[in-house]
Amino acid sequence: MPKLGEYIFQVLHQYGVQHAFGIPGDYVLSLFDVLTESEIQPIVMTHEPSVGFAADVYARIRGLGVAVVTYGVGGLNMINPIAGAYAEKSPVVVLSGSPGVGERQKRDLLHHKVKTFDSQRRIYEEVTLYAVTLDDPFTAAREIHKAIDYALKFKRPVYLEIPRDRVYAEIEPISIQPQPIKQTDPETLDEAIAETIAMVNQAKSPVILAGVELHRFNLQEQLLILAEKLGCPVVTTVLGKSVFPEAHPQYLGIYNGVSSSHLVQSLVEESDCLLMLGTFLTDINLGLFTAHLDVANAISVNSEIITIKHHEYHHILFEDFIQSLCHREDLPHSQQTLVKEIRDRVFPTTEKISMGGLIYELNQFIDENTVFLADPGDCLFAADDIWMQEGTSFFCPAYYASMGFAIPGAIGAYFADPFRRPIALVGDGSFQMTGMELLTAKHLGINPIVIVTNNASFATLRAMGHQEAKYVNIPTLDYAKLAELMGGNGFAIETRSQFRTALHEAKKQDNFSILDVRLSPEDISPGLRKLCNVFAKTLKG
Amino acid sequence: MPKLGEYIFQVLHQYGVQHAFGIPGDYVLSLFDVLTESEIQPIVMTHEPSVGFAADVYARIRGLGVAVVTYGVGGLNMINPIAGAYAEKSPVVVLSGSPGVGERQKRDLLHHKVKTFDSQRRIYEEVTLYAVTLDDPFTAAREIHKAIDYALKFKRPVYLEIPRDRVYAEIEPISIQPQPIKQTDPETLDEAIAETIAMVNQAKSPVILAGVELHRFNLQEQLLILAEKLGCPVVTTVLGKSVFPEAHPQYLGIYNGVSSSHLVQSLVEESDCLLMLGTFLTDINLGLFTAHLDVANAISVNSEIITIKHHEYHHILFEDFIQSLCHREDLPHSQQTLVKEIRDRVFPTTEKISMGGLIYELNQFIDENTVFLADPGDCLFAADDIWMQEGTSFFCPAYYASMGFAIPGAIGAYFADPFRRPIALVGDGSFQMTGMELLTAKHLGINPIVIVTNNASFATLRAMGHQEAKYVNIPTLDYAKLAELMGGNGFAIETRSQFRTALHEAKKQDNFSILDVRLSPEDISPGLRKLCNVFAKTLKG
Repeated sequence: MPKLGEYIFQVLHQYGVQHAFGIPGDYVLSLFDVLTESEIQPIVMTHEPSVGFAADVYARIRGLGVAVVTYGVGGLNMINPIAGAYAEKSPVVVLSGSPGVGERQKRDLLHHKVKTFDSQRRIYEEVTLYAVTLDDPFTAAREIHKAIDYALKFKRPVYLEIPRDRVYAEIEPISIQPQPIKQTDPETLDEAIAETIAMVNQAKSPVILAGVELHRFNLQEQLLILAEKLGCPVVTTVLGKSVFPEAHPQYLGIYNGVSSSHLVQSLVEESDCLLMLGTFLTDINLGLFTAHLDVANAISVNSEIITIKHHEYHHILFEDFIQSLCHREDLPHSQQTLVKEIRDRVFPTTEKISMGGLIYELNQFIDENTVFLADPGDCLFAADDIWMQEGTSFFCPAYYASMGFAIPGAIGAYFADPFRRPIALVGDGSFQMTGMELLTAKHLGINPIVIVTNNASFATLRAMGHQEAKYVNIPTLDYAKLAELMGGNGFAIETRSQFRTALHEAKKQDNFSILDVRLSPEDISPGLRKLCNVFAKTLKG
Repeated sequence: MPKLGEYIFQVLHQYGVQHAFGIPGDYVLSLFDVLTESEIQPIVMTHEPSVGFAADVYARIRGLGVAVVTYGVGGLNMINPIAGAYAEKSPVVVLSGSPGVGERQKRDLLHHKVKTFDSQRRIYEEVTLYAVTLDDPFTAAREIHKAIDYALKFKRPVYLEIPRDRVYAEIEPISIQPQPIKQTDPETLDEAIAETIAMVNQAKSPVILAGVELHRFNLQEQLLILAEKLGCPVVTTVLGKSVFPEAHPQYLGIYNGVSSSHLVQSLVEESDCLLMLGTFLTDINLGLFTAHLDVANAISVNSEIITIKHHEYHHILFEDFIQSLCHREDLPHSQQTLVKEIRDRVFPTTEKISMGGLIYELNQFIDENTVFLADPGDCLFAADDIWMQEGTSFFCPAYYASMGFAIPGAIGAYFADPFRRPIALVGDGSFQMTGMELLTAKHLGINPIVIVTNNASFATLRAMGHQEAKYVNIPTLDYAKLAELMGGNGFAIETRSQFRTALHEAKKQDNFSILDVRLSPEDISPGLRKLCNVFAKTLKG
């Protein structure tokens, strides 16, 4: 009979997990010992919020990520990144140690406990798809498979709590595989595909609005096939950025309401057949709800529901729909003339570094071996103008929008795909939250490149009309010198050419680099500038 | 009619709150603006876990603390410190902004949202005594008073969520004050006091075991009166450390099971009348359950229940019992001879710095103008041997045991009582979690002294028999140089005399200091050494 702890890591390894992010603590020590002996490598971080972000990005890239934490002080310190993984559909398996079942019966006030022994599991029920305590060796194997199955099918985090006296418990093997959670009904699928093709056939100006779920469900190749068969313009949401190769002739940019370029905005909003594939209809994705999308001209396909005009199809798996559609032989090829807009809003006019100049130089530097991570705040709005090469991946929390994501995320990205170089673009506010995690990069000998937009400000709040408020000014720090002190490479940057040189220097290094870009607090990206007025209105509720 | 946001801060200010810790974000911007205009000063921190710890320590000192955060990414990033405040009874009022009531009806996928708009409130229900969304102007005032009343009476955190379109809403004033939540029944009190006095009268060796609730309920003066009338030995728990003046002739030290000194252990465990006043019966407080306390000889009085031998009294407020008992004229004066033990287990034998030498030098340095904060790990176990002067306060999360507490806690302590100098004793693991918060100290011009036990280890895990595990080794950093870089004073310390000099130098400074104490990873405090064997057994569950 297999032992519980061992079994979990065996199953996870079979699903392709090679690294688990975590921090040890007494309630999870035995599980850490088992992890150390397993095929999976433990990556010890400095703070639980970072553990969650690293596992999240690993999951986005590899299809499954793992976070291992102790009870209470560990688990409850990771609620925020796991909530983000839930909101943005990232399949993270949270493994938390907890007081032994035996201890719980004998004693009440064990350290790290809040209200009841179940408090932590109940909290995780609010931020995961499935949360269970593996206290029963008879059902444990089934629960493990069920949870991982949920994570894989629905791309959401799940929570497994392992009481410390159950780590070495012999568990009942599963005899029958659990039933598939959701299946496609073939007749429903046929009808929906037929209706889609009919609508595309009649359309004069079909457009694909590609969303992040195409990446989560590993359907990027199918998107490319479909797009090339249709020959229509392709745009993405912010969250879905890089899901379609940005150098492709059919790719026209990001659609996010008024923040989009005029060309993209009019193409999308005037399309007589808008194919929204795997798109989250969230506020930031839709330019703070400035999007004007006519439901009567739209087909929306995602993992939750398929909607054509005003009616819904259920019982169709997202991946089955996309697979089926892209392989149809009767797809019409669009007669539209594709016009690529010259995007010159980041063309730099000064040698002094600015957000525009930073983006311009980044666009020259990023190549197909880059993984790019952006933190919320102006770094996220700037991403509208950053152009990814084919194969480049772009990760950002564009819906949940938690600061502190990108630096630990870059560590997760490195382990998920060591052949690509992670570049994280973060604000100084974000850096102050999770930048200390670069110690982990140094400790493990990995070399992410971190670009800090150093403006001593919460620049987005400032841009929202709060430039007079004292609370938008944050503490200053010399991030370049900090890099040296932490064992990495630091670059203090005042000009565009310094930035360009630093990027190339950093690329050569074996350890991490910080590019400390000194910006004026008033200098914001073109994307954010377009949203300022909308923000000001929204804030009034 | 008062406006909701203004009203909250007016009421909090009336209860003595002069500072509120927080981080702005778009859902809480209006509330921040109202806060800025109020009598309460906003203290902006760098990361929400720190906001929670600062507000917690402020609450421990001032009787009420306030944390102001944004929805989702803010609120959910503060679950851990608020859970700690719940577990250790610290009255923190959490104010979280959230999407406007109007927005919620119109739109579903607003940024920062996880499952439902209520997810965050439901999560806070697990870590606070009362959690409510102030969406109704008719009931808001009543809810505000009810929540603050709960926090004050039960010394637990409460949660008020303010939808951003309600900040300026005019609210119905309250006409009748809410009923007191719990009241003392006079006859029950008389009976319990009489029984207590009878038991003390018959006792040959009464002992007071003083707990942290005496501090929370502001009953330290009453404890002193009671102790001096009884003339018996006084010991405290770790969590209750400094609740009784440690230089007082009746004070004998900390009781925590086998970890205690022999004298304290035998006095407590052999007492025929053990008065446990405001004591949490938690695992760490009781030396990992190595305490042997005979219920038949014990009187336990705390805010939840009063127990004499094997029976219980309800309907008595803790503070009423203590007040009533200490003012009785018929308390017997104990005939015990008080023997003070010479505590020499930290007497240093080498000039090279060690945990023992560090504690020894600290004992010479700490005075009545010190507020002392210890992080969990060996810094907490070390505290057994640190002697506080009269008036000194000692704060640590000895039950919930979250790392990262002491540095942001020192900022909270400074604002709660600017006449005392905060000294934080933290491990390097803890520093890596929340040490960046010293930027806030620099930004605000305050001068805590931080002592980092720099041993590149999770020393407690190492001491628990895991010295061979790779995961106990953590990244290194030159904390002294980091201090200089962040705008403070850094001291690299290898010897006892360097440590002594640095303490006195740091004391003179107007900005923060880091004393970077380079220790051998194997060097642990005498307190932890005594617990190692117990730990190893407990870990096996």
